[in-house]
Amino acid sequence: MGEILSQLKTPADIKQLQREQLDLLAAELREEIVETVSVNGGHLGSSLGVVELSIALHKVFDSPNDKIIWDVGHQAYAHKLLTGRLDRFHTLRQLDGISGFPKRKESEHDAFDVGHSSTSISAALGMAAGKDILDKDQKIIAVIGDGSLTAGMAFEGLNHAGHLKQKMVVILNDNEMSISPNVGALSSFLSRKLSSDAFIRFKKDTESILSIVPGFGKDLVNIAKKAEESLKGFMTPGMLFEGFGFDYFGPIDGHNIDELLETLQNVANIKGPVLLHIATKKGKGYAPAEENPPKYHGVGPFDKVTGKVNGAKPGSAASYTGVFGKTLVELANEDDRVVAITAAMAEGTGLNAFAAAHPDRFFDVGIAEQHAVTFAAGLACQGLRPVVTIYSTFMQRAYDQVVHDVCLQNLPVTFAMDRGGLVGADGPTHHGVFDMSFMRHVPNLTFAVPRDEVEMRKIMKTAAQHDGPFAYRYPRGSGVGLPLPNEIETVKIGTGELLREGADVLIIAIGVMVGEALEAAKLLSQQGIDAAIVDARFIKPLDRELLISQAEKSPLVVTAEENALQGGFGAAVLELLSDAGMTVPVIRVGIPDSFVEQGSQAELRAQLGINADGLVTTVLKSLNAKQAASAS
Amino acid sequence: MGEILSQLKTPADIKQLQREQLDLLAAELREEIVETVSVNGGHLGSSLGVVELSIALHKVFDSPNDKIIWDVGHQAYAHKLLTGRLDRFHTLRQLDGISGFPKRKESEHDAFDVGHSSTSISAALGMAAGKDILDKDQKIIAVIGDGSLTAGMAFEGLNHAGHLKQKMVVILNDNEMSISPNVGALSSFLSRKLSSDAFIRFKKDTESILSIVPGFGKDLVNIAKKAEESLKGFMTPGMLFEGFGFDYFGPIDGHNIDELLETLQNVANIKGPVLLHIATKKGKGYAPAEENPPKYHGVGPFDKVTGKVNGAKPGSAASYTGVFGKTLVELANEDDRVVAITAAMAEGTGLNAFAAAHPDRFFDVGIAEQHAVTFAAGLACQGLRPVVTIYSTFMQRAYDQVVHDVCLQNLPVTFAMDRGGLVGADGPTHHGVFDMSFMRHVPNLTFAVPRDEVEMRKIMKTAAQHDGPFAYRYPRGSGVGLPLPNEIETVKIGTGELLREGADVLIIAIGVMVGEALEAAKLLSQQGIDAAIVDARFIKPLDRELLISQAEKSPLVVTAEENALQGGFGAAVLELLSDAGMTVPVIRVGIPDSFVEQGSQAELRAQLGINADGLVTTVLKSLNAKQAASAS
Repeated sequence: MGEILSQLKTPADIKQLQREQLDLLAAELREEIVETVSVNGGHLGSSLGVVELSIALHKVFDSPNDKIIWDVGHQAYAHKLLTGRLDRFHTLRQLDGISGFPKRKESEHDAFDVGHSSTSISAALGMAAGKDILDKDQKIIAVIGDGSLTAGMAFEGLNHAGHLKQKMVVILNDNEMSISPNVGALSSFLSRKLSSDAFIRFKKDTESILSIVPGFGKDLVNIAKKAEESLKGFMTPGMLFEGFGFDYFGPIDGHNIDELLETLQNVANIKGPVLLHIATKKGKGYAPAEENPPKYHGVGPFDKVTGKVNGAKPGSAASYTGVFGKTLVELANEDDRVVAITAAMAEGTGLNAFAAAHPDRFFDVGIAEQHAVTFAAGLACQGLRPVVTIYSTFMQRAYDQVVHDVCLQNLPVTFAMDRGGLVGADGPTHHGVFDMSFMRHVPNLTFAVPRDEVEMRKIMKTAAQHDGPFAYRYPRGSGVGLPLPNEIETVKIGTGELLREGADVLIIAIGVMVGEALEAAKLLSQQGIDAAIVDARFIKPLDRELLISQAEKSPLVVTAEENALQGGFGAAVLELLSDAGMTVPVIRVGIPDSFVEQGSQAELRAQLGINADGLVTTVLKSLNAKQAASAS
Repeated sequence: MGEILSQLKTPADIKQLQREQLDLLAAELREEIVETVSVNGGHLGSSLGVVELSIALHKVFDSPNDKIIWDVGHQAYAHKLLTGRLDRFHTLRQLDGISGFPKRKESEHDAFDVGHSSTSISAALGMAAGKDILDKDQKIIAVIGDGSLTAGMAFEGLNHAGHLKQKMVVILNDNEMSISPNVGALSSFLSRKLSSDAFIRFKKDTESILSIVPGFGKDLVNIAKKAEESLKGFMTPGMLFEGFGFDYFGPIDGHNIDELLETLQNVANIKGPVLLHIATKKGKGYAPAEENPPKYHGVGPFDKVTGKVNGAKPGSAASYTGVFGKTLVELANEDDRVVAITAAMAEGTGLNAFAAAHPDRFFDVGIAEQHAVTFAAGLACQGLRPVVTIYSTFMQRAYDQVVHDVCLQNLPVTFAMDRGGLVGADGPTHHGVFDMSFMRHVPNLTFAVPRDEVEMRKIMKTAAQHDGPFAYRYPRGSGVGLPLPNEIETVKIGTGELLREGADVLIIAIGVMVGEALEAAKLLSQQGIDAAIVDARFIKPLDRELLISQAEKSPLVVTAEENALQGGFGAAVLELLSDAGMTVPVIRVGIPDSFVEQGSQAELRAQLGINADGLVTTVLKSLNAKQAASAS
């Protein structure tokens, strides 16, 4: 544990440090970050990239009075270490440990909770406007990566900030990539430094203007037009942000503490919005991460000496993401109409394989979920079968586009939602536990949740052949380890499956909860209780016939889902049974009405009672209560 | 009916017209539009503004092979008239009539369904990319207003289009306003033409560069930097779009048919994305609309000679929107922390009054719902009590921000959702019938739906005093006409009200359906059926005690809501009763699982059975069935 770092109790202590101590502090921060992330996993590259920036920010500004808002927030490890969380840092991303993202409940120095990208400018602008209304003396600083800038929300914030002329500092942390290498015109535009090409063009054009100097006074319009033309390719990021009403400074070296300190001190006092453009390197100071930024963006435990990431255990099952990627390539081999879209997550969603196999039918749109969905709608209008691959939690960004641009027109767009359910260490901002609730009610949508990887392949093929919008979700992590038949069957839409007969209780489960229900049935049978198990498979449409016929035979129905109970799968079953005039008692197992914190998936499932043991407890409690009631 | 217009059967016929006939056609289109909108109401100003553009597009391009995508779509009346819908145009926005927006089901010339703003670039880019994959010979054209360009989604589309270098034409229809006058830096930036100021600066700077010509070869960096500095204020819209990889043309006069035809012909053949900037006037050719664009943006029936809008009937009740605007001013007078935010809808949401009374606490963020919500979160972090006022249907755009930026942090932001429920003539893109389903499951959120304007004022005050996120929704149109007490009471959160006792059936209603339920109770009592009526008031949290105690007394529960049945209010009641172990039969009345078309609110309610008569029918049917069952 670093000797300077360990003496910092609050960020105010940084102000007492000598200049040369700051370099040592940077080294200590990096060591601590690599040490902890190598054990716990986490977001390594971004955090290493902003070590100097974090030091400089806390040296120049006075948190918590001044507000530092980190966009996305996975780069805030150094900030956490500098704000009194060194002793708990080893609990990073663990159950009851400190969060991998800024969190107001965790520290007064975390100005805004975050996890999804591109919110910082909006939040900072709100704080800046609020400070003026309340006449507070504060400085407001947002730190946003160039990747996050491609999301429309960041642009909305910039546009409004330029309009309000609010005093605030936006630091553009330009590391020339987001999670994947950046896409989009903005990115190439940002990186357009004063290259030698541009110089040559400038020289040539200036000379040609000079050559017509005799007409200078006469035909100013033509000259101006000519100059404008010649400058089109010469536009710099500065001009863009100035165009939006920001004062622009930079780019400066984001690893040069002197330059950072001087510039931050200067910009802190400027009236109106300032954009400071800094250049950093992802993974800075840790060679393996510098060399392969995507790999170490979000990384599992690794050997900190060699950088080698701890592989999956030999013989462990393939991940759902991997099976998805492989299967989509197969479907695209069979059907020319299948195209794939990702919002800056080619690696995370397993679409890398698709991109390699079908580059002409693969689109990475950048961090732009809204556009991704409507772009897919446009593709579908042409007769294609786009598959929009998005983490469930980020699908939230495109809810309106799902309703208004896809389902209203009944277009054959597939929404492949990875990381459905509890995601584990990334915590409340990343759990995909609302998708059943926010998508189930959308008319025209078909929505399936496969119970294992073989079923997932069937659902994927079924979706690709369906003439309308289709959503499916699958969990983070490994499948159950089934062999994958080469031939993929389809299933009839709206059909579930009776997996086990039993007279005492009917458990209707969906997705990963089907496996838990089968396990629960075994445990229950040891206690003489005979459980029927249905895999509903589709949350929409539900298998009316199967569910009703089974519910009619059972004295008790239990539903099981890894989703919010409000408006989720169990609610759908209640609606179905109620509409059918049935009054069988129903117990719903799922996620209660509160945000779920971080922890391993297994820990969280146990805590919430949404696993086999939880189902057993629920069933026993309910049957006992019934017995007691009928006995009394 | 115009003699040229009446002879056009398909847009191909326009190509046969002589040049001088096109001017006559424009006049005929305007007459037809003013005539119909003066009777039916509709979006007048935008449609009048693009009459010449619509003619030119259909003269140059070949719809439906070429795809014309209208952003928002409320400017597409001339397009509709030019594509074979003249004879049905008098049914505009009426039940079973033609839609006020492009609609693929209505015509092969409507390339993309629309209603919400800023989707056109994404959809067009998808079509352009799809055309290439499928090797179709088509031209793709998106028409987007400058107002729509402030939404982040449009920016996401531009960014991706520049990246893909896809052949497509984006026509920026610059009328220097959206629904309200535009806000945002982009807008001032777009209007920055080559002003005389800029010329003077350019001249001065060029001269100063000339003066250092001797050093030209020597110190190119300094010259370049100097040139860049001097050009910051000189940046034009063209440079912005060129920066994003578009070829830029314009601005040209959007009412000059010759110029439009020539330019469209030229840009149609350019490889890669083109942005054509045209300048138009909202309301062009109809004096009252030219003079007051916001008034005639979306307008009810009016006298086409004088332009006088048909007022409300004397003595009719104030609108919910009006009561909301007035009440929020009162709340802000009492509490300095109350601030108001609109996304380009100051007039539509009734916030004009607030803007006048409390200009320092009023924010119009432009068409930017995502930013609006997170900006509010930032204000709330400072201790303010922001009220985000948004039509229910546009709230869909900010679902993720509600979850991730407000509710996760439990911030005291209020979501005032106007136009909740069926909105009438604007149809499926605008009905606010999903909010209960997509917001009810969000943890930490309180959600109320007042039954009348007096209750709305109570809910508004209750929300303003609540230390957490709070949503309420209220309908389009008039309140029930109650006098408004000056003193506003608050209510206890999570409490409903028993409005009528009755032993035969319990109707639990929310929002406007409470009035319908009371009316139904009267009708039922005439048939000897005694209905209890509960106003649930809160959908979240439900009044557990009241609902359960009343349900226990009743042989039948009916729920009533103006929302999707899936996951909505009735579903919430089912969940509550099921969790309480109750097995009373429940019939849910609300909107079934399909998109609702256009029509008057009364017509649609009658069609769907969600009014007093519908409730009576439902209750009678259900009681009869029960009777039959018990008799057999």
